[in-house]
Amino acid sequence: MLEFRPVIFVLGTLLSILALAMVIPAIVDALSGHPDWEVFTAAAATTLFIGVSMMLTTRSGWRGFSLRQAFLMTNLAWLVIALFGSLPFLYSQLNLDFTDAFFESMSGITTTGATVIVGLDQAPPGILLWRAVLQWLGGIGIIVMAVAVLPILQVGGMQLFRVEAFEADKVLPRAAQIAGGISVVYVALTAVAAITLWILGMTGFEAIAHAMTSIATGGFSTSDRSIANFESAAIDWAICVFMILGSLPFVLYLRAARGNFRAVLRDSQVRWFLSIIVLSVGLVAFWLWMERIMEGGAALRYAAFNAISIMTGTGYATAAFDDWGGFAMAIMFVLMFVGGCAGSTTCGIKIFRFQVLHATAVTQLKRLLHPRGVFFPYYNRRPIPEAVSASVMGFFFLFVGCFGFLAMGLGFMGLDFITAVSGAASAIANVGPGLGEIIGPAGTYKTLPDGAKWLLAAGMLLGRLELFTVLVLLTPGFWRG
Amino acid sequence: MLEFRPVIFVLGTLLSILALAMVIPAIVDALSGHPDWEVFTAAAATTLFIGVSMMLTTRSGWRGFSLRQAFLMTNLAWLVIALFGSLPFLYSQLNLDFTDAFFESMSGITTTGATVIVGLDQAPPGILLWRAVLQWLGGIGIIVMAVAVLPILQVGGMQLFRVEAFEADKVLPRAAQIAGGISVVYVALTAVAAITLWILGMTGFEAIAHAMTSIATGGFSTSDRSIANFESAAIDWAICVFMILGSLPFVLYLRAARGNFRAVLRDSQVRWFLSIIVLSVGLVAFWLWMERIMEGGAALRYAAFNAISIMTGTGYATAAFDDWGGFAMAIMFVLMFVGGCAGSTTCGIKIFRFQVLHATAVTQLKRLLHPRGVFFPYYNRRPIPEAVSASVMGFFFLFVGCFGFLAMGLGFMGLDFITAVSGAASAIANVGPGLGEIIGPAGTYKTLPDGAKWLLAAGMLLGRLELFTVLVLLTPGFWRG
Repeated sequence: MLEFRPVIFVLGTLLSILALAMVIPAIVDALSGHPDWEVFTAAAATTLFIGVSMMLTTRSGWRGFSLRQAFLMTNLAWLVIALFGSLPFLYSQLNLDFTDAFFESMSGITTTGATVIVGLDQAPPGILLWRAVLQWLGGIGIIVMAVAVLPILQVGGMQLFRVEAFEADKVLPRAAQIAGGISVVYVALTAVAAITLWILGMTGFEAIAHAMTSIATGGFSTSDRSIANFESAAIDWAICVFMILGSLPFVLYLRAARGNFRAVLRDSQVRWFLSIIVLSVGLVAFWLWMERIMEGGAALRYAAFNAISIMTGTGYATAAFDDWGGFAMAIMFVLMFVGGCAGSTTCGIKIFRFQVLHATAVTQLKRLLHPRGVFFPYYNRRPIPEAVSASVMGFFFLFVGCFGFLAMGLGFMGLDFITAVSGAASAIANVGPGLGEIIGPAGTYKTLPDGAKWLLAAGMLLGRLELFTVLVLLTPGFWRG
Repeated sequence: MLEFRPVIFVLGTLLSILALAMVIPAIVDALSGHPDWEVFTAAAATTLFIGVSMMLTTRSGWRGFSLRQAFLMTNLAWLVIALFGSLPFLYSQLNLDFTDAFFESMSGITTTGATVIVGLDQAPPGILLWRAVLQWLGGIGIIVMAVAVLPILQVGGMQLFRVEAFEADKVLPRAAQIAGGISVVYVALTAVAAITLWILGMTGFEAIAHAMTSIATGGFSTSDRSIANFESAAIDWAICVFMILGSLPFVLYLRAARGNFRAVLRDSQVRWFLSIIVLSVGLVAFWLWMERIMEGGAALRYAAFNAISIMTGTGYATAAFDDWGGFAMAIMFVLMFVGGCAGSTTCGIKIFRFQVLHATAVTQLKRLLHPRGVFFPYYNRRPIPEAVSASVMGFFFLFVGCFGFLAMGLGFMGLDFITAVSGAASAIANVGPGLGEIIGPAGTYKTLPDGAKWLLAAGMLLGRLELFTVLVLLTPGFWRG
């Protein structure tokens, strides 16, 4: 029998934190004289009551977590937070139905950034802030999960980072300390981003909201036009920097904070990540210039912003990049899958997996020529254990497979080919916009059929929890125990 | 230093065979009084002269093949045959330029079936037959390569079939014997197909041409309208059967011919293959009926024909299936990658690899729950060696990666997103048609820019030789020796 008490206790704790977070938009709405403050207060009270009840009824009689409990808890945590996080959307002036409210909440907490809301510019401040808060909480939740949970669960090759975080760096031996340090870095980066954006011309409110959704690589904006609304090259470039900062391994910031800057620069994942960005921005900018879609400077600016936004899975847009022609569209589509570094707020397949896949493939090519030779793939100057390599390759297969099934499912819901395929990629990689007129950078998910929205929300969760964490619940062995 | 003599000797042999094959369309054109017979005769003479010269100058002074020579020979064999196979296209009345002629020839010999020729119904019989012959030779070449060459080269998990073909089945111990047996089966199946199609109403010429391109899962037709031209349900269903027969492992036919029919039915690859066909045909037919695109009977007929044609990589069409809506289009797109069984004439990722990937992924999910447990993935009731599993997963990664780069490259050549993406998939999986107005089932590759045609031809070769065989030539280690 599976013991549910520890699971429920943790869920209760998380819900209580969520309830406290709801107080912030309540205050903002109250201060700006907006009636939605009552909605947030009621949602916070409900969530807090349920959260505390869960904690109180399960606080004792158990010790530690089994693997099965850890998997179950991770899944339920994101589901339950998405569920309670949708309350404000459900009862606010926006009047979203349950499907839309849940979609928006799941898109927020997974830092996807796909939205069903049209008319953001006129929306009450509380709701705009709540969307930013959801993504911001999602962002830190993901980093902590990537550092403290997934490596122990050995999900999709994340065990690579167990060694790095908990053994190699003896100066920070304990998980709680690391999580605390990361949280400080996260808050500090967000503060720097907010101040910078405010100096560059955003209002204080806009600056805080966009700082939260930039560092979280979330992508919710306070305007239907997204960042294009600000028409400022300086803001574009600043946000590029913050999206990149949100995509680097947060553990490295801790090392840098202790003076070890070389650790950041020597990290091969960081190098690959930045190289891929430079390469793809360069290609897209060159294409925009060659095809005479834009002048040189504008080409670089719009290529950089939109390519970085898509690759890091942020999902802001400053241009309808799906009108840039087949090459740009193909690059953007491929970039959706790439993502950022492990231990960051990004989703997607992630850079380190491409490194492992590449190293393994090269090793296999060598073995073809020298079947009796001994070759090892390397990651960050260390040989990759066979189990990690297999785990990463399995992840890649499942990622592509789930993407394919999701695309077919969306097609079955009546979506056209481009919307189905790009929507599936965007959901599972937690990007935000898809391609094409409906869900492209200039569109919204509002008009999609309900079934498609539920499928997309499921895809977001699947991608966010690195597939294995969800799929393991679907094996009969999990429930037989 | 790489010793080229054995490579050149084999290439010379293959060219001599190709030259003999050119005599057939020469005779047909001569009998039907068409002036192209001179073109075929000249091409045959040229090819034979060069082939025999290559053989004579290199026939002695070497023994056996090294691995590097085998890789080089496999690549050059397909390149050189495509090159000489393009001569008739280049000089015939069709007046194709070199790019188009090479594209058509490569598409033929790799059994892809993408065509740049419009006006097939008015084309001289010699050319139509030459297209069929190229695919038919390509088909048997692929089977022999899959049975005798790739398992020894250990390409993409094909070593799984080394055991089956050369050790488990002691009754047929030698490679030449197996190749001979397979050729007899291949000829017999083609003959049965030709007679059947002739009985069902095709002319003798059409029946032979389509028999050759059905069993080879090639897809070249004698009409611009492909099989839709015959407007016959019986012909559609018959060709469905022949495409399936061409997609099963030919080694199993040898066993069946020796009375071991159960070997065919018990083979898990065959079961998976047929199950995927039944499932996808059922889904597409249900969709066509549900969306009121067709009545029940027609829905089943058109769904079956086009889904089987795409999945087996044949590439015939009886309907513009990319007008069937997002769901059908997404399924067709996914089916392009699937392919048939190993040791058949099909390309794509192939069923056994999906079985290995699936078994490995399931094993990994089990290991997540029981990190200290010992689990093995199985294929066909045997444990999968770790090297095979890694090889297959590496293949999958490279396949998806090459597809992505090819799609971006085609985008760079100016193709729109759907044409670039579906064209890349169609080329690398040797399918034939893509999706969309330009290269979809109702279009041709004629209007594409030259650069795109060369890229597609390279993609066909890459897919046909199972990636590794080509990519290994690109490693510096190959040339350092």
